[in-house]
This record gives sequence, C-alpha cells and structure tokens, in this order.
Amino acid sequence: MFTHEEKDAIYKVIEKRRDIRSFLPDAVPQEAVARILEAAHHAPSVGFMQPWNFILIQSDELKNRLAWAADKERRALAIHYEQDERAAKFLNLKIEGMKEAPLTICVTCDPSRGGSHVLGRNSIPETDIMSTACAIQNMWLAACAEGLAMGWVSFYKKSDIRDILEIPPHIDPIALVSIGYTDTYPTAPILETANWEKRRALEKLIFHEKWRK
Amino acid sequence: MFTHEEKDAIYKVIEKRRDIRSFLPDAVPQEAVARILEAAHHAPSVGFMQPWNFILIQSDELKNRLAWAADKERRALAIHYEQDERAAKFLNLKIEGMKEAPLTICVTCDPSRGGSHVLGRNSIPETDIMSTACAIQNMWLAACAEGLAMGWVSFYKKSDIRDILEIPPHIDPIALVSIGYTDTYPTAPILETANWEKRRALEKLIFHEKWRK
Repeated sequence: MFTHEEKDAIYKVIEKRRDIRSFLPDAVPQEAVARILEAAHHAPSVGFMQPWNFILIQSDELKNRLAWAADKERRALAIHYEQDERAAKFLNLKIEGMKEAPLTICVTCDPSRGGSHVLGRNSIPETDIMSTACAIQNMWLAACAEGLAMGWVSFYKKSDIRDILEIPPHIDPIALVSIGYTDTYPTAPILETANWEKRRALEKLIFHEKWRK
Repeated sequence: MFTHEEKDAIYKVIEKRRDIRSFLPDAVPQEAVARILEAAHHAPSVGFMQPWNFILIQSDELKNRLAWAADKERRALAIHYEQDERAAKFLNLKIEGMKEAPLTICVTCDPSRGGSHVLGRNSIPETDIMSTACAIQNMWLAACAEGLAMGWVSFYKKSDIRDILEIPPHIDPIALVSIGYTDTYPTAPILETANWEKRRALEKLIFHEKWRK
C-alpha cells in the first residue's frame, strides 16, 4: 500500500517528466544509471519475454556518428516540411542532444526472445515493442526522480544505427535515449512551448461503453 | 527536485506493480479513475501527437462480449501449444479477468492524429503505439499507487474488439485494461510464479559501446 505522500511523489514525477534536448557535460553517476536500468527491467512485458537490451554509449566517436545519423534524418525530414507553414519553426527546433549528453543508451527489442509462441504475443505481435516502450517510460520516470534529464531520439534510419553499433539485423533499435544533467528542465513540453502542438483536452479523448459515446 | 522519500516511492511503485487477473466486484472510485487517466495523458508522445483514446466499459453485456473474444483467442492459441510441454500449464493459466473487474478500459491509438508528418514519426512510424504504451505504463503505476489492480489483456483479434465497441477501421485497439480491487496482489510476476518464464539477469542484457560487448 502507498501513503498519501508516496502517491503524491508518483503523480509528481509522472507530471514533471519532460523530453530534454540540452545537456551539461557533467558525468552521470554509475549508481544512478544502475537504478535507471533496474527500473527499465521491472517494466511489464508480454508473456514475461523481457525483449530489451541496453547498449551504453559514452565514446565521443560513436556519439558523433549517432548524431550524424540523426542529423541527416532531420535534414531529409526538413524537405517534407518545405511547403508547410511550420518549416521555419522546424528548422529552429533542437531535436536531439546526443553530442552534449555524457551518456546515450540504445534500447533494443529482440522479437525472437522467448521462442516462437510468446504468451499473448501470438495475437498482437507488436506487444514486444510496446513492452520495450514501457521499459523506456520507467527509465524516464527514474531519471527524472534522480534529478537527471532524458531525451528520446527517434530521428534515424534503423539500418544506420545497426551499422554504427554492430546490431544484428533481427534486433530492433527502437530508441536512442540521451541522459545527463541539464540547467533548463522545462515545466511544459518543448513542442507546446514552441507552439508546435497543443495539449489536447483529456475529456474529449474519453468515451463511455463504445467509441465516440 | 525529488527528496529521498519521493525517490523511494517512485522506485517502490515501479518494483511493486504487477499484472493482475483476479478482481473483487467492488467499484472503482471515479476520482481514482480520473487520476489514472490524467496520468496516462501525461505520457510522452512522439511529436506531442497524443494518439490515445480511452473507452471506459462498465456494461456487463459488453464486458461479456470482450471476455468471449479473449476466450476464443485463448482456445485458438491452446492449439499452438498442443505439442509443447507447456500445454497443460497454459490451460491452467488465468489470462484475464474482464468479467470480474468492475471496469475495463480499451486504450486505442489513432495513427492519423497530428496529420501527415508528425515530428519524429516519419522515421519510425511505430512510435505512435510506443507512445500509447508509455501512457498504459503510467496508468499501471497510477493504479498501483491508488491501491488498485490492473491487468493488460492482449489476447484478442482487433477486428472483434472493433466490432464490439464500434471502433473505426483506422483506429488501433492496442490494449484492453481491467481495473479493480484485488485481495491477491502478488509480489512476483504471475508467469514467474507459475514457472512459465524466469526473470532474466539484468547484467546480461547490458552492453557497452556496441552490441554484445
């Protein structure tokens, strides 16, 4: 059971957690990284398959190559926005901080783990990546609780990340996660502050008994 | 910033949260449901697309039809285990508690939300369902903090769920989530207790700089 104070702490971290793209160079304590990974490993997983791996990247050479992969994806995406009123805004958005952050973690999902018939995954195969996403959310909440900033980068071609980190073809590099300290932990989502998107009204997203009721 | 006590509470809920399939009939307080949905809505989402909807189902007729859809999927899956040494074990596993739980929430993902070029989703389209999975993990932690039990059911054909809840074809019903009280909140994952799967050693899932290093 949880006390009122414990409940408040849990809701506080859920509300305060933000996606961060600006980092200080200060190193992340190893014990904090260990607790963050332990939190990830305590995520739920379909059929208890625990499909995740974590590649901890601290080498400047590898971080620079990952940042290059993200940057060329950003420039390619800019072309899709060229006739969009948001084009100028897009080019001013900082979409990742991998060169600055002292630690990047590539979180992968192994769809073959647990054999051919993972309980519950026969019906909905993508429950493997959803399980891994739950692990990433646990990491995010743990990082926030540790006073650390975390950013989830999804601007890349998976084949580039496989090449750079020597990941086998059947393994899915589903996220690049940067972790470090920041001096600018925002109170609102940065895409909201940048007027890119608004937070939707929750009551409009809730239905009763059936869709749209 | 978080105090030591707040950090402990956050790690406690991450560790204690379990997937539950046995529920008491007692109603769930509306204020708790509101806080759980607010927690879901504070999940991260790619390009701040917030692709989720929540259908709250309390009608016995609909819960029975959802339970029927899950049960026929369970029986179909049993056929795949017929030559597996785990067949007998599988048939004894309770895989969902939708008829008992006072509340089931169908969590959906709308891949069309946010328009044609959602920031970050151009590169990895499945970031929409991963965002929704993060929302479900927030719901789970919030439910646990509220002293409530939650179970994620993924045994169904999506087309059955669309038919029963009148969900449009382009909307993805990614989870059926049961919520209620329980008198048997387990300390270990039920698939671990049932000797279905073991918890893996975390240190074997962590690599440094590159895969398998």
